[in-house]
Amino acid sequence: MKFKFLTVLFLVYFMFCGSRVVSQECTTYVNPFIGTSNFGATNPGAIAPRGMASVSPFNVSGKQNKLEKDSRWLSNPYVHENTFLTGFSHVNLSGVGCPDLGVILLMPTTGELETNHLKYGSTYKNEVAKAGYYSTTLEKYNVKVETTASTRTGISRYSFPKGEANILLNLGLGLTNEQGASIKIVSPTEIEGMRTVGSFCYYKPEENYPVYFVAKFSKPADEFGVWRKPRTYKGVEAEWMTYNGKTRIMKGYKKEVVGDSIGSYFKYNFSEPTQVEVKVGVSYVSIENARENLEKETQNQTFETVYKNTSSQWNNLLSRIKVEGSSENDKTVFYTALYHTLIHPNTLNDYNGEYPSMATRETLKTNGTRFTVFSFWDTYRNLHQLMSLVYPKQQSNMVKSMLNIYDESGWLPKWELNATETTTMVGDPAGIILTDTYLKGIKDFDVEKAYEAMRKSATQLEDNPLRPGVKEYWSNGFLTTQNRGSVSTTQEYNITDYAISLLAKELGKKEDYKKFSKQALSYRSLYDDNLKLLHPKNPDGSWYEPFDPLAGANFAENIGFIEGNSWQYSFMVSHDTKGLIKLMGGKKQFVNQLEKVFDSNQFDMANEPDIGYPYLFNYVKGEEWRSQKLVKQLVNQYFKNTPDGLPGNDDTGTMSAWVIYSMMGIYPISPGEPFYTITAPMFDKITVELDDAYYKGKQLVIEKKGDSSGKINTIKLNGKSHSGYFINHSSLVEGAHLSINLK
Amino acid sequence: MKFKFLTVLFLVYFMFCGSRVVSQECTTYVNPFIGTSNFGATNPGAIAPRGMASVSPFNVSGKQNKLEKDSRWLSNPYVHENTFLTGFSHVNLSGVGCPDLGVILLMPTTGELETNHLKYGSTYKNEVAKAGYYSTTLEKYNVKVETTASTRTGISRYSFPKGEANILLNLGLGLTNEQGASIKIVSPTEIEGMRTVGSFCYYKPEENYPVYFVAKFSKPADEFGVWRKPRTYKGVEAEWMTYNGKTRIMKGYKKEVVGDSIGSYFKYNFSEPTQVEVKVGVSYVSIENARENLEKETQNQTFETVYKNTSSQWNNLLSRIKVEGSSENDKTVFYTALYHTLIHPNTLNDYNGEYPSMATRETLKTNGTRFTVFSFWDTYRNLHQLMSLVYPKQQSNMVKSMLNIYDESGWLPKWELNATETTTMVGDPAGIILTDTYLKGIKDFDVEKAYEAMRKSATQLEDNPLRPGVKEYWSNGFLTTQNRGSVSTTQEYNITDYAISLLAKELGKKEDYKKFSKQALSYRSLYDDNLKLLHPKNPDGSWYEPFDPLAGANFAENIGFIEGNSWQYSFMVSHDTKGLIKLMGGKKQFVNQLEKVFDSNQFDMANEPDIGYPYLFNYVKGEEWRSQKLVKQLVNQYFKNTPDGLPGNDDTGTMSAWVIYSMMGIYPISPGEPFYTITAPMFDKITVELDDAYYKGKQLVIEKKGDSSGKINTIKLNGKSHSGYFINHSSLVEGAHLSINLK
Repeated sequence: MKFKFLTVLFLVYFMFCGSRVVSQECTTYVNPFIGTSNFGATNPGAIAPRGMASVSPFNVSGKQNKLEKDSRWLSNPYVHENTFLTGFSHVNLSGVGCPDLGVILLMPTTGELETNHLKYGSTYKNEVAKAGYYSTTLEKYNVKVETTASTRTGISRYSFPKGEANILLNLGLGLTNEQGASIKIVSPTEIEGMRTVGSFCYYKPEENYPVYFVAKFSKPADEFGVWRKPRTYKGVEAEWMTYNGKTRIMKGYKKEVVGDSIGSYFKYNFSEPTQVEVKVGVSYVSIENARENLEKETQNQTFETVYKNTSSQWNNLLSRIKVEGSSENDKTVFYTALYHTLIHPNTLNDYNGEYPSMATRETLKTNGTRFTVFSFWDTYRNLHQLMSLVYPKQQSNMVKSMLNIYDESGWLPKWELNATETTTMVGDPAGIILTDTYLKGIKDFDVEKAYEAMRKSATQLEDNPLRPGVKEYWSNGFLTTQNRGSVSTTQEYNITDYAISLLAKELGKKEDYKKFSKQALSYRSLYDDNLKLLHPKNPDGSWYEPFDPLAGANFAENIGFIEGNSWQYSFMVSHDTKGLIKLMGGKKQFVNQLEKVFDSNQFDMANEPDIGYPYLFNYVKGEEWRSQKLVKQLVNQYFKNTPDGLPGNDDTGTMSAWVIYSMMGIYPISPGEPFYTITAPMFDKITVELDDAYYKGKQLVIEKKGDSSGKINTIKLNGKSHSGYFINHSSLVEGAHLSINLK
Repeated sequence: MKFKFLTVLFLVYFMFCGSRVVSQECTTYVNPFIGTSNFGATNPGAIAPRGMASVSPFNVSGKQNKLEKDSRWLSNPYVHENTFLTGFSHVNLSGVGCPDLGVILLMPTTGELETNHLKYGSTYKNEVAKAGYYSTTLEKYNVKVETTASTRTGISRYSFPKGEANILLNLGLGLTNEQGASIKIVSPTEIEGMRTVGSFCYYKPEENYPVYFVAKFSKPADEFGVWRKPRTYKGVEAEWMTYNGKTRIMKGYKKEVVGDSIGSYFKYNFSEPTQVEVKVGVSYVSIENARENLEKETQNQTFETVYKNTSSQWNNLLSRIKVEGSSENDKTVFYTALYHTLIHPNTLNDYNGEYPSMATRETLKTNGTRFTVFSFWDTYRNLHQLMSLVYPKQQSNMVKSMLNIYDESGWLPKWELNATETTTMVGDPAGIILTDTYLKGIKDFDVEKAYEAMRKSATQLEDNPLRPGVKEYWSNGFLTTQNRGSVSTTQEYNITDYAISLLAKELGKKEDYKKFSKQALSYRSLYDDNLKLLHPKNPDGSWYEPFDPLAGANFAENIGFIEGNSWQYSFMVSHDTKGLIKLMGGKKQFVNQLEKVFDSNQFDMANEPDIGYPYLFNYVKGEEWRSQKLVKQLVNQYFKNTPDGLPGNDDTGTMSAWVIYSMMGIYPISPGEPFYTITAPMFDKITVELDDAYYKGKQLVIEKKGDSSGKINTIKLNGKSHSGYFINHSSLVEGAHLSINLK
């Protein structure tokens, strides 16, 4: 008994979050409903850190719902304001802009068997969501559903009332637009199968792929079966088919069933209220691996045990940053954002290390973690920088996964999803992340291979899937209107080329350093001095006219720009802000022009190109207060402890990383370069536990002094005055005490 | 060299067919095109005796064809007068009346890849079909296709011209109306997958089931891939899907693909004309078993070797009956019919003995052969009797399979197809076959279990899937119009009950003997003395009126009768012909009435109920010449060495068994009873090799003497005069020499 008591004390000490006066586990401050409205595209489902499996409520099918998946472009399995739930999906994406996954749907019902989700769906109440836990009660059935998850296994606990109960596994329904599944009831306690997913963003349908699963039930079914709704025949044959187009129930059937609209049911008849637990192991390799994942992770573990383990994992990770002194809401915004950055990139490999390789999907094996869901156009800007600072081991493994992908497919990833390259968005951002990681001191990867890989995508002129227009880019220096998003893409390539030049310099590749550092500035040819903005050029070198710098807001298609307009892009030259200032005619003109973005409401907090803008005033001495004011205002306006508490798509944690850094008072303003720019923190004290495998320092402490409504007066580093609003990564990770004093 | 010569001599002696003056292998007389027109529903594909796999040309898709599978009720993969071929299917039914199987379609093409069968289909020429072999040349591609098969493996040899070549494996197309398949390219020489089949006769769709396959190619593909044609989306999502409804080519893809319309391609580029062999192993248990079937049966064997083995198997079986003295055409009609009776029932178990059990499809194992495709409404009348006489070991195994089915499902089969009970047609014929087999001396099965099984279906009043209306049948004695086909079904039940009574007697079950022999005559209550025909009764016991004995011909729906009218059924009391003669008022009235059937063109050679009619004159002394004349006339009219050389559906060999017996001069006129009736043989000499494991005699010899246009004058058995036109089975299998002398 004594031992037990000591153990508890030990846990109390290490796992509590923030101020030790009122000790709380960090997970207390996770509100998974944040981002489930306003197109945040997160979901409140139970998931382990970087989990392959999750169990999300699925409420986007059925006309009762405000946002219905088939009636609009909808990229999430759950929308907070919807009311009609048709199951719980076991592989899900968080915060993305395109529909995919959201499949392997379990649903408990009662009474007579009904296999049409539009009929068996239910309203629900009493939702509770925590890190690693979600529960609700289905009003139609009076069934309480609780879900949790280990890395590759989703677990549900259904509390059924007395009487007939059903557990449906629907493989027809899904968020993905792909179709096709197979299912096989192995025994009255086990089902195995697969579901096809893919064509993310309604693109590359030929790269669809299978996700495998095994489901194990804590109680054997009294009756089981499979259903299949075949296509409806037309013509003469329809006359003889009394069953034409009708769903078939295949009771007791134990062979594989395949089709586009299939599912299985387990039926019970309970003489008293009864709980059933269902564990669903998933894998992108095979059914066997899905079964092993389930068994190795959760065999002989109850729902409670799995939840405790997962919650403890969350707490361990979240408590790497401790924040003190601010409202509970601010803490919840902060820790939920941190939670969101720990969902993607997520684990692709199975428990035994196997994973589908890029391009061929041959089964390969890793000793570490093979990560997936690399949405680099988003995450190169801040998420990987956050990983490098707080979770350098994870970032190192992400880089290794990137290099594995290069080995497997010949190319670095761009928007990688479960070993497919969706080639969504523009640019070639992998090199920026590789350079940024290396220059931050995380060097336990093959940097020469990394360099070779980034150089290849930058320079291979033919058959280059990563850099469309690369030929023109090198011959002209920039892209013209004959290439999609010519200005935006030139900027993206420039930033990458700058990162390549930095790594070339570091590795002593002088020729390359010269070549790429020069090329990195080619965007300047697209600077229109009359407009003081970037302006697309025609192939003949003339300006594209008529040109409206305001066109292209709100995702309207726009010549020269991707998901934005000239105002939202012109300052996105993070590697050359000083050069831009000169181009614009000096600091004053630069500040004026930048202010116009905000004053004229052109700033878009919900999309990536301009998310660095608020910090750019830091480049002009005396104007830093504008950044401080703006960042604070944007955080308060867009990031809230409410379902609509994200400005838009979380973009696999990019928006969350933005608010984390912004609340911490530092921001990685120039991706690829190992420094941060400084603004006012929103907590009195932030303590980052540093990983001693990578960093000398034990902790990074950022302290705010003075009235938080004020502006920064002085900055002290380790007790000494720090000049300017920029600080090197190396200084921070030596164990800096950064004191930011407001007046 | 000497040894080789002797071997050849040995083969010559034993395997030659018919007269030894002009020695020929019996397979010479097999023309697989017989029955491929006129709805015979046979196919000319290559198949081994009782093969699970076959390779049939598939020419029933595409509007170019006269008989197109989607434009009408069509039950065969091949129609002789069609011209547009879209592949070669690897599991096929022969001579059935409902569409099923006809899947796993291979097709060689040349040039650019085309995956739409309506576009890649081709006309063809130079068809050759033999027992175990089929070949043709595809005119569009100038590719010669040859196919052969072992029991569970279909083998194709494609002779490609120089240039681009493709081998397509289409899992969307099929004769079955079921959908759903999975496919996985294992390597550049191997593909595995499954295809869903079922809902035979557009019935019991919930009992669809998978057929698995593995395909191995003799040459590795230069390129390979999978295609999938997903369903077409409607509504807003369709706008974003540039690929909506279009076929996708997934090049190099090596994971499972599932869906309703999928396939794979292997692509080659030949610098010179090249042959590729493709072996397709199939299984109803698993992919692993399909692979083992392929390997154990054909590993390291060339096309030629497999064909030789299969051809030799055919020859061994066919040469169990030798016929001498008639035209080549007659021999071809005879041996092709014998060939057709050796296709179904066919092998269900895999090489390792595993098979899907009835009802549950659990995998079970047999030491012998588990047979499937039991179309008993057809085959109880003559096919099993032929098996008992010529292939008693096979018949014994069929009976054992029937009893296994009873063990597995609780019921004997009725119309069993690949371990599903289609419950097609009426009656409960299994007991007739069991009794017939036992009383013929084939007793190596559990006769007590057989008796229990037949008694159960006869007497279980509730939840009886085999005998609809069984309650009324026992309470009334017969069925009334409240049950479907009340007269026909009463007759069928009566015949079975008579068979039960015979076995009860044999087994000393006196009470049952009494009960069933009495019940077997209950049809007599439906005899209408005014019409001298059977007449449906209403539930109140009154005659159903208005009643037209002519109604119901040509498969028209008819109260009281199944696929026929009163004329076609009234004499179908094979167990009580003598009783019927009395009912009709004596021999004269009986003969008059029976003659009317033929004179008024009511006789239907193409369907089973009346196929015993031509022999019924043998029951009336002095009128036997009518049977002799009729049988000869019907054989000549309906059974020809031409594609339309069957009167209609072969009904898994029933029509073929009819013509075999008819040409031999004996016919099992009363199913269940171990005797034959005698008519004029159509060969000078027929020698049946008797199986010494079952029969005392070595050979049964039937000799015809005198002018074959004449009538029977005398019959001699073993040199002694034989009185009457009936002869016991036991006499024949003692090694009878039956001499039939015509005048």
